[in-house]
Amino acid sequence: MVAAASTLLLRRLPVHHVLIVIAIACLVVVGPSCCGAKVLTAQWDVEYIFWSPDGEEHMVMGINGEFPGPGLRARVGDTLQVNVTNKLHTEGVVIHWHGIRMKGRPWADGTASISQCAIAPGETFLYSFTVDKAGTYFYHGHYGMQRSAGLYGSLIVDVAEGEKEPFEYDGEFNLLLSDWWHKSVHEQEVGLSSNPFRWINEPQSLLINGRGQYNCSLASRYNSSAALPECSLGGGEQWAPNVLKVLPNKTYRLRIASTTSLASLNLAIGGHNVTVVEADGNYVQPFSTTDVDIYSGETYSVLFTTNQNPDENYWISVGVRGRLPQTPQALALVNYLPNHASKFPTSPPPVTPQWDDYNRSKAFSNRIQGLEGTTPPPPADYDRRIMLLNTQNTIDGLTVWAINNVSLSFPPTPYLGALKYGIKAAFDQTPPPDTFPDWYDIMSPPANPNATTGNAIYTLDFNSTVDVILQNANTLQPNDSEIHPWHMHGHNFWVLGYGDGKFQRGDEKLFEKAGRRPPLKNTAVIFPFGWTALRFVADNPGAWPFHCHIEPHLHMGMGVVIAEGVEFLADVPRETLSCGLTGMMFSGNGEEGHN
Amino acid sequence: MVAAASTLLLRRLPVHHVLIVIAIACLVVVGPSCCGAKVLTAQWDVEYIFWSPDGEEHMVMGINGEFPGPGLRARVGDTLQVNVTNKLHTEGVVIHWHGIRMKGRPWADGTASISQCAIAPGETFLYSFTVDKAGTYFYHGHYGMQRSAGLYGSLIVDVAEGEKEPFEYDGEFNLLLSDWWHKSVHEQEVGLSSNPFRWINEPQSLLINGRGQYNCSLASRYNSSAALPECSLGGGEQWAPNVLKVLPNKTYRLRIASTTSLASLNLAIGGHNVTVVEADGNYVQPFSTTDVDIYSGETYSVLFTTNQNPDENYWISVGVRGRLPQTPQALALVNYLPNHASKFPTSPPPVTPQWDDYNRSKAFSNRIQGLEGTTPPPPADYDRRIMLLNTQNTIDGLTVWAINNVSLSFPPTPYLGALKYGIKAAFDQTPPPDTFPDWYDIMSPPANPNATTGNAIYTLDFNSTVDVILQNANTLQPNDSEIHPWHMHGHNFWVLGYGDGKFQRGDEKLFEKAGRRPPLKNTAVIFPFGWTALRFVADNPGAWPFHCHIEPHLHMGMGVVIAEGVEFLADVPRETLSCGLTGMMFSGNGEEGHN
Repeated sequence: MVAAASTLLLRRLPVHHVLIVIAIACLVVVGPSCCGAKVLTAQWDVEYIFWSPDGEEHMVMGINGEFPGPGLRARVGDTLQVNVTNKLHTEGVVIHWHGIRMKGRPWADGTASISQCAIAPGETFLYSFTVDKAGTYFYHGHYGMQRSAGLYGSLIVDVAEGEKEPFEYDGEFNLLLSDWWHKSVHEQEVGLSSNPFRWINEPQSLLINGRGQYNCSLASRYNSSAALPECSLGGGEQWAPNVLKVLPNKTYRLRIASTTSLASLNLAIGGHNVTVVEADGNYVQPFSTTDVDIYSGETYSVLFTTNQNPDENYWISVGVRGRLPQTPQALALVNYLPNHASKFPTSPPPVTPQWDDYNRSKAFSNRIQGLEGTTPPPPADYDRRIMLLNTQNTIDGLTVWAINNVSLSFPPTPYLGALKYGIKAAFDQTPPPDTFPDWYDIMSPPANPNATTGNAIYTLDFNSTVDVILQNANTLQPNDSEIHPWHMHGHNFWVLGYGDGKFQRGDEKLFEKAGRRPPLKNTAVIFPFGWTALRFVADNPGAWPFHCHIEPHLHMGMGVVIAEGVEFLADVPRETLSCGLTGMMFSGNGEEGHN
Repeated sequence: MVAAASTLLLRRLPVHHVLIVIAIACLVVVGPSCCGAKVLTAQWDVEYIFWSPDGEEHMVMGINGEFPGPGLRARVGDTLQVNVTNKLHTEGVVIHWHGIRMKGRPWADGTASISQCAIAPGETFLYSFTVDKAGTYFYHGHYGMQRSAGLYGSLIVDVAEGEKEPFEYDGEFNLLLSDWWHKSVHEQEVGLSSNPFRWINEPQSLLINGRGQYNCSLASRYNSSAALPECSLGGGEQWAPNVLKVLPNKTYRLRIASTTSLASLNLAIGGHNVTVVEADGNYVQPFSTTDVDIYSGETYSVLFTTNQNPDENYWISVGVRGRLPQTPQALALVNYLPNHASKFPTSPPPVTPQWDDYNRSKAFSNRIQGLEGTTPPPPADYDRRIMLLNTQNTIDGLTVWAINNVSLSFPPTPYLGALKYGIKAAFDQTPPPDTFPDWYDIMSPPANPNATTGNAIYTLDFNSTVDVILQNANTLQPNDSEIHPWHMHGHNFWVLGYGDGKFQRGDEKLFEKAGRRPPLKNTAVIFPFGWTALRFVADNPGAWPFHCHIEPHLHMGMGVVIAEGVEFLADVPRETLSCGLTGMMFSGNGEEGHN
């Protein structure tokens, strides 16, 4: 059935909208591997291109001349070998494979300063890794704010041949969601590191598969007093909306991934409920909903059935939540065949729920549960609990984010190599604090706003069970606390629970809501003034960032680095170690060469 | 007398114009060296800053929060130790010390892909070198188009203590000239590498010591029908013009350096003639002139005497030549004390000579002669002559510049390390051609516009005398040939002569104009449809770029690399070799690590 869907997906009809799917080009099967698994290879040139994601042309970080980058699709057990050539002029680059755990190959995680040195201009690095879990993933830049610059694409892992998903569908579509600024990321980065602080502000547009509309709206037709004029589109534009061509009375899988820099999103299909079946590459207990909250770094699969009036087309809308929306909804079209895609939906796009209705947001997050038979329950207890207080602070006049009062600053030497080869000078060897003071008042701006910059890491006992309590707090502004979706590399974690206020002894009872099965995820949100409790097993040798997936927040220091079992790695490839102190490591005499 | 001038230079008066001098801060004397020479150290953080070079704020590549970067001043024999920390977010960086020959320390030349790997973000590189020749120099970025981004500053070398210059003056001023675009260099770079080609167009402003005016003019007062309004300045602006405070009836040295990305310039002082005494760090036979042509990469010292009406102030103007000017003149004020700097000059700024009066330009260039007693004559003959044809071409739909049909593409492995360690895979080992076909018609667009990309080098016999004939030609447009100022690293060359048309056998006789003493320079222009003959001795072990100093032209491939005597270098520091194949060189087993 997926094959049928693929045919459907790849058909392009001469309508004024275009059908956008994840292109599966550029992936070449080079040979058989064990058990039907294959080795898939691709050559990617990363370079800036001029592109019009929303009707206004800007410089975008593309791959092989495309934006978003080429879609990847593989089966469980396949090995991906993506050869990345940096064709930027002066910037390094890496590519992170978001949600792939990289078991046994932590150096392929694609994080500058952590798993490898950035690939220098003109150089090539081979990302080689096996995908071991079916699901919806994506990839993106993980150096500076190159994700915001457009360096991202889709990565789908199908079940192994002969295996079945725990649900059925007739076809599928893939929607990679992002937000887009007209100001260059270089300027954004500098503004964030400036005194006075210059915030990036809200995005100019939201994009679905790299397509959005700026200064015009597809929905103005429904509103005679609309602020924006109706978009005038010929159909071939880079910013023409996605069209999902469906047949009546079928069930489709919609894969949704959010690689936004900032925005928390909500997606809904006009007139159709959806059933959530997958989150972050893990099956979840199916539940029906009118709309889906999706935070940066999350992925979902939802099923929807084309059971509405087949004479109509319908809108998919994606809007901002969690921050006062200043960006129009992104829209895509569900085109019931044989209607023409130009047939305008009778009903306006779904309205995004009130941005600050956090009770609604929490209710949605709490509905995500592991699927019995696919999601093991978490270990009954933890070996270590780490409390991470998220605060906004100042350091030398700069505005930063800090975790337990430490704002993460990435060192020039990658942690993985430094750990493997015992290069203690590479980063601060005094571990960061496991908790924060009891007296800290999370409901007020920090009494002392000063934080410190640091690059120390949390070293975890291999195979130990670790709980993390992510504690939110008030920002530097009174009565303000923000949403932060935290993403962990190299692991899935169980989301034990969400709570309001400061985590207190005894709040563990909140983990055990009647019958609730904690879901496995790689990204989980903390709500304003709230906490989120996670549990994971430190079973993946390597060094891994765990950070707020809002890119400017990470840029401002909102993350930590964990490491475990590096001693069990036989080797760390030299190609990942050509910078910093590891770069000097293999020279006979570093001092001699000092000019 | 220089000391007195320094005091004068460092005084800032509360006027609405400001006195801008090269700050000599940040240079710390750390200890005595041989013969009165000193070791001067500085710590430089390279980072983007927001700045208003011409009244419009943009991102500028600054050093220690300043634009232009800090001025350096040393004496002959001093050692400079400049510790450069890259505080950019994702870009590498290097700093080239333009005009300093780097004898015995070619790895300190600061050219990415040639003398070193770019310094990665977060990393620090120590540039340590001795200055062995008094003169006017400057430094600048030499990676991508980072010079155009604002990464430059002044470097002055005074004669050794107790030594004297061959001329006298009462005070001195330093004018570092540049051109400035509002579009980011990233976008400029991508445009140059795009199909269709996007030229950077003319600069928005010309800057003197980093100060210019956009969308207003200081000179509108003289012209009631001026297109631009008069600038409204409070005096403290980053874009307020330079004020040179002088006393009547004194002689001042004006040090002029051009680090323009594109523009060929002409400088004149209203009502004052100047006497040219130095060019590119070499003394020249003094001559008097109303104005000075200065091409990108050149430096001059001129003397002027404040012998005009002392009740008046006067303009210094800098305008564009060699291209149709679309950029207003840059202006600075010569303020005769005790007049107030706010006293507007009675006379308008000098008018820049007609941009395409090349006969006038050639006459000026031909007046530059070596100063007997300071400039040795060139060797009587050459050991090898290399003819370099400069053409504009296309490669795979891209517009490029090529030399003997090869467009230079810098490899990821630095030449110096590759040569020293015999890494043949680092660049093409087949040398580029020493000449071009006799039949080539320089007066027409190339019959076959296709060129090839290459990175091979010219290997010169150590201590041999080499002639280079730089041959200009028609561009891709009929009846069009451009100015190209060629700059050689690591050497001075004698400018044997300039000629029109195609260099022919027998044109050598043009070298020997009666009594003309070829000047030593490091930058020499080729005029449209003409040739320029240079001679130099290959006496500096290392690998050295020789290229058009117009930064977009170099970016488009307009350069060659020469190398000589690398075998005589005892070592090349490891710090310069952490990228490309040299980065892998010191690993036990590169293949093993390949993931």
